[in-house]
Amino acid sequence: MPTATVRVALVGTSGYTGAEALRLLGTHPLVRLTRLCAHSRAGEPLADILPPFAGVDGLPSVEPFDAAAVAQVADFALLAVPHGTAQTITAELLAHDVRVVDFSADHRFDDPDFFAAVYGHAHARPETLARTVYGVPELYRERIRTADVVGAGGCYPTSVILGSLPAVRQGLLAPGAIPIADCKSGVSGAGRSPGAGTHYPETADGLHAYKTLAHRHAPEIARALGLAKVRFVPHLVPMIRGILSTIYLPLRPGVSAQAVREAYVNAYAAEPFVTVLPAGQHPDPRHVRGTNRCHLGLFVDDDLLCVQAAIDNLGKGAAGQAIQCLNLMAGLPEDAGLTHTALFP
Amino acid sequence: MPTATVRVALVGTSGYTGAEALRLLGTHPLVRLTRLCAHSRAGEPLADILPPFAGVDGLPSVEPFDAAAVAQVADFALLAVPHGTAQTITAELLAHDVRVVDFSADHRFDDPDFFAAVYGHAHARPETLARTVYGVPELYRERIRTADVVGAGGCYPTSVILGSLPAVRQGLLAPGAIPIADCKSGVSGAGRSPGAGTHYPETADGLHAYKTLAHRHAPEIARALGLAKVRFVPHLVPMIRGILSTIYLPLRPGVSAQAVREAYVNAYAAEPFVTVLPAGQHPDPRHVRGTNRCHLGLFVDDDLLCVQAAIDNLGKGAAGQAIQCLNLMAGLPEDAGLTHTALFP
Amino acid sequence: MPTATVRVALVGTSGYTGAEALRLLGTHPLVRLTRLCAHSRAGEPLADILPPFAGVDGLPSVEPFDAAAVAQVADFALLAVPHGTAQTITAELLAHDVRVVDFSADHRFDDPDFFAAVYGHAHARPETLARTVYGVPELYRERIRTADVVGAGGCYPTSVILGSLPAVRQGLLAPGAIPIADCKSGVSGAGRSPGAGTHYPETADGLHAYKTLAHRHAPEIARALGLAKVRFVPHLVPMIRGILSTIYLPLRPGVSAQAVREAYVNAYAAEPFVTVLPAGQHPDPRHVRGTNRCHLGLFVDDDLLCVQAAIDNLGKGAAGQAIQCLNLMAGLPEDAGLTHTALFP
Amino acid sequence: MPTATVRVALVGTSGYTGAEALRLLGTHPLVRLTRLCAHSRAGEPLADILPPFAGVDGLPSVEPFDAAAVAQVADFALLAVPHGTAQTITAELLAHDVRVVDFSADHRFDDPDFFAAVYGHAHARPETLARTVYGVPELYRERIRTADVVGAGGCYPTSVILGSLPAVRQGLLAPGAIPIADCKSGVSGAGRSPGAGTHYPETADGLHAYKTLAHRHAPEIARALGLAKVRFVPHLVPMIRGILSTIYLPLRPGVSAQAVREAYVNAYAAEPFVTVLPAGQHPDPRHVRGTNRCHLGLFVDDDLLCVQAAIDNLGKGAAGQAIQCLNLMAGLPEDAGLTHTALFP
Repeated sequence: MPTATVRVALVGTSGYTGAEALRLLGTHPLVRLTRLCAHSRAGEPLADILPPFAGVDGLPSVEPFDAAAVAQVADFALLAVPHGTAQTITAELLAHDVRVVDFSADHRFDDPDFFAAVYGHAHARPETLARTVYGVPELYRERIRTADVVGAGGCYPTSVILGSLPAVRQGLLAPGAIPIADCKSGVSGAGRSPGAGTHYPETADGLHAYKTLAHRHAPEIARALGLAKVRFVPHLVPMIRGILSTIYLPLRPGVSAQAVREAYVNAYAAEPFVTVLPAGQHPDPRHVRGTNRCHLGLFVDDDLLCVQAAIDNLGKGAAGQAIQCLNLMAGLPEDAGLTHTALFP
Repeated sequence: MPTATVRVALVGTSGYTGAEALRLLGTHPLVRLTRLCAHSRAGEPLADILPPFAGVDGLPSVEPFDAAAVAQVADFALLAVPHGTAQTITAELLAHDVRVVDFSADHRFDDPDFFAAVYGHAHARPETLARTVYGVPELYRERIRTADVVGAGGCYPTSVILGSLPAVRQGLLAPGAIPIADCKSGVSGAGRSPGAGTHYPETADGLHAYKTLAHRHAPEIARALGLAKVRFVPHLVPMIRGILSTIYLPLRPGVSAQAVREAYVNAYAAEPFVTVLPAGQHPDPRHVRGTNRCHLGLFVDDDLLCVQAAIDNLGKGAAGQAIQCLNLMAGLPEDAGLTHTALFP
Repeated sequence: MPTATVRVALVGTSGYTGAEALRLLGTHPLVRLTRLCAHSRAGEPLADILPPFAGVDGLPSVEPFDAAAVAQVADFALLAVPHGTAQTITAELLAHDVRVVDFSADHRFDDPDFFAAVYGHAHARPETLARTVYGVPELYRERIRTADVVGAGGCYPTSVILGSLPAVRQGLLAPGAIPIADCKSGVSGAGRSPGAGTHYPETADGLHAYKTLAHRHAPEIARALGLAKVRFVPHLVPMIRGILSTIYLPLRPGVSAQAVREAYVNAYAAEPFVTVLPAGQHPDPRHVRGTNRCHLGLFVDDDLLCVQAAIDNLGKGAAGQAIQCLNLMAGLPEDAGLTHTALFP
Repeated sequence: MPTATVRVALVGTSGYTGAEALRLLGTHPLVRLTRLCAHSRAGEPLADILPPFAGVDGLPSVEPFDAAAVAQVADFALLAVPHGTAQTITAELLAHDVRVVDFSADHRFDDPDFFAAVYGHAHARPETLARTVYGVPELYRERIRTADVVGAGGCYPTSVILGSLPAVRQGLLAPGAIPIADCKSGVSGAGRSPGAGTHYPETADGLHAYKTLAHRHAPEIARALGLAKVRFVPHLVPMIRGILSTIYLPLRPGVSAQAVREAYVNAYAAEPFVTVLPAGQHPDPRHVRGTNRCHLGLFVDDDLLCVQAAIDNLGKGAAGQAIQCLNLMAGLPEDAGLTHTALFP
């Protein structure tokens, strides 16, 4: 077992993706967390920010972010900061030769024009984007290994991409057909800031869609899959974590259920975190909760493929995927620190 | 205010739809519940079967079913008994001139051959089906008034039918296109019998589809809408009650969002229980919980209409709809006993 | 059945207790809601404030509060406004001869000094308190009938009072013993304003106490029961509505379980909303959800009585109790508009 | 870091405690799982029994139990089998020199008479009890190291014992006073077999006590603490995992809040898994979910100490504690495999 460890800083501690990264790094055998940064809550005891850390020793104190200070102790930084903020921080870290995995939406496109078109404003540091790779290892494993900046794939996009990729790559889809992704997310996907839309009494025991056919994850998905368009309807369900994406993919005439299954099984045979369930089985995000895993269910009716993809929005949809990318960038075994299974029940 | 009341028997008390019917009848101003039947639990105190009735006086005791005894005290019977059982009971009640609203799936088709094709076995009393009307008032209001037997529309089908009907009737759909109904149901839809699939520790904080593209509600929906086929994927979500159906309807070229909205608003302008929400608003089943209401949200992107329909599976999807049908059959105001609003929160 | 109705204004519409009052008044056969007031949200469509009212016709529009305008159309006002605000509003309404039921904590004590001691500041209109009765009908039914102002009992206090009253009044308690009330509340008890403590991802699937032995409901309980002190530990549980209070009452030596049961059954025999469950049965707030009912379970072990009291914090703990008081004040049947049973499930 | 590993068999795979043990062993760095046994489900793919294991390689297949076969490959066995069954299995394993940690209630007392008094029937293998130690390391660490059989402390008892131990040991309690433990458990504590009491629609959004003052965990608690009696009222709350025990401990006159805090802090200063939260902070089981940790909150009002203890019923209340005991028995670092923190959120 290698004893040398990779030195990593975590920038952003008080949000959910940062909390999950911190939890996962805590049992990562080959990473040493050398610095922990938070913006507004620097100086506070970690357990006041994240109650599960009460009584846990040995972690760095929570410091304000300073790129030079990070560079002194870390070769990699994980960025769990809000969208927008990550643009400047990433540029500063790069200037100090710290390689970055960004959890935010700031580095998911390598094209400044596409970024501006999707988000409605220019990227603050467009030159960074040329050094950026989209962080879904199943898409860009080799490029991630050597990237300076990886923008980890978003939670919804990762689930839809993994659920659609073999069909797209193997040419199983009907030409010109537009997939529909009916996605269901747990409430942690909305972040840690409380609001009317996440208030327990109005969130429990209910369910609703939002931003129907108008969510900005749709272009992220379409671009990653090389499709002209994807229809995307996200729903908020009373679940703490997890995403289940039910994806409707029109098939080319003549493509059989067996051909679909073979394409998926082959595509993911060597993937450490993607599992195609046996025929007839339905995935559930609770079975991948807290993990970097993705479970896929496949169902075909005539010329329609319905794929169901379950991930943890904070795991494979954020912090888990970021650590998978980190492992690749640092030359570690890709699954280091990510082999655990979900709590059951 | 009319003081004469309609005499009604409730057959089936221990399941969820029977419990909901009993609750609704308890505040119905024009109905008198004259007999309460249960099969296995006859003779037990009602509060032992349904705990909310502890301390509630004035209800009939729970008797075994006997058609002649029912006929002596009631002109109408609501049947909240299991699928299959309702076939014989309905025939017996008809023989005693008691008109029936059946909550089960036994009287949702007036064609014995279609029934056999969907359920895989012949109907035990096919002659009854000729006297049967499908119980969705928005479809068959006038026929329901005079029907001897009404088979109340199923929970999923009602939500999809109400969400699709104006588009279908107004010819807005692309010819030959197959709608997709991605439906999410609360767990009470699975009934009151416990099982691994409804065990709290494995049901809470998760979500999954079941019987993907193979559920027998699909032909019920298609037949009611006069379509050749509907794709139907039901999901179980951690919610006690409620259905949200997200329906994807391909539009004829040139149909505008405005035309869609007008069609729906006009179609439902006079309907007492169906509300088209303002543009941009998303329905949530918690807002119709415990009621007979249906909230619809409309979203159009190019040639795709996405309708979201929220109902209570035990309300408009079962007991509420049955009482709406009963009101029609008995010549009462259609909304009698059904005007209340949902608990909030 | 009387056809004359009582004219009532509801002041405060956007919070949970106001929403519940509006819902209950909507099916009250003897009350006519003549004015609906809200502070910050006056002028908005009601359905934008309370989504279950989408498509519901016939309600007054939402107006700013004006005492004179209220007095023109209403003889009674229900006040579902924040603590503090109710003091002035009540005084203004009294000046216009409108009798008031206040849901807030502003009129739960008729003694200004006690009020100041509990809340840490003087009452703004202490003269009102002399015309005020504590609104728990099981305590002060006759005085409520003629009161000008009724301060409806708080949610936790009502559950503990109803659970303890027969034991206290019948002298069953050990002299000097201090009861312990271990209370569990649903999250709606925290109100409609979102915050970190009610954010779904940090509230679901967990449970914690708060303000242990230091909550200001403790003196409200003790005063109502005529006890020197009560120990009170409230807990927040992942439930939308409802309170279960587990109350530990040391018995005088020699008091038997049978004597306890008889005391409770006799005390509540004529009460329309309080039910003593049969021996061995445990109450659950879900069985009284949305109602004005209270279920009590009684358990004795040697010299300890454990009473479990279940209510809906927004029902018997707020809006239901307020309407029960209104009925008394207006000379209506005490249970008018409150006879419904809980949703099941 | 030691590279030699301890060989362990897990007997009982399909229940929740077995599933949790399997999950924890999966990331234990010093244990090798060499055999996996199940009774009724032997031969099935593990992922069919426990869905989170879909796609997970490298685990033994699920075999029927055979003591000799276990002894060939394992030095220790963890027993996650039903109460009753463990008595024979343990005896068989001992006969083959396999040391045992039993999760069931079969080996929590070393006195056959006490066992018979609590459970109402004789122990099948009373001779085993002489070789048995109660598995709460904070009580019996040294004896556990050399025990042949450890009966891991039950979930409720462990929380109450850890919450009461320093007060009891330091003589802070009023002589003769009977503590009250008002405990709240997640539904997984009821096991994996579905029933009416764990059916989602009747379990979510509600809360109730059960076996009030008559649960057989009460004598287990009292015996472990050396007290004559403990009052114990368990409640079932809509939570998947976790226990919060609110314990009311009457103090000797003159014992100050400061003295209490010092006693607890000192008692647990060297304990790896028990954390006394800072003054004013309330523990929540969600902060220890999936871990072997225990969080304690301390509150004093005059002569009453209210301790709140949060654990995971399947962690420190079952599988986590069992692995902690295993570590002690095998001479491993006590916290090996148990250092992770809870999912947040």
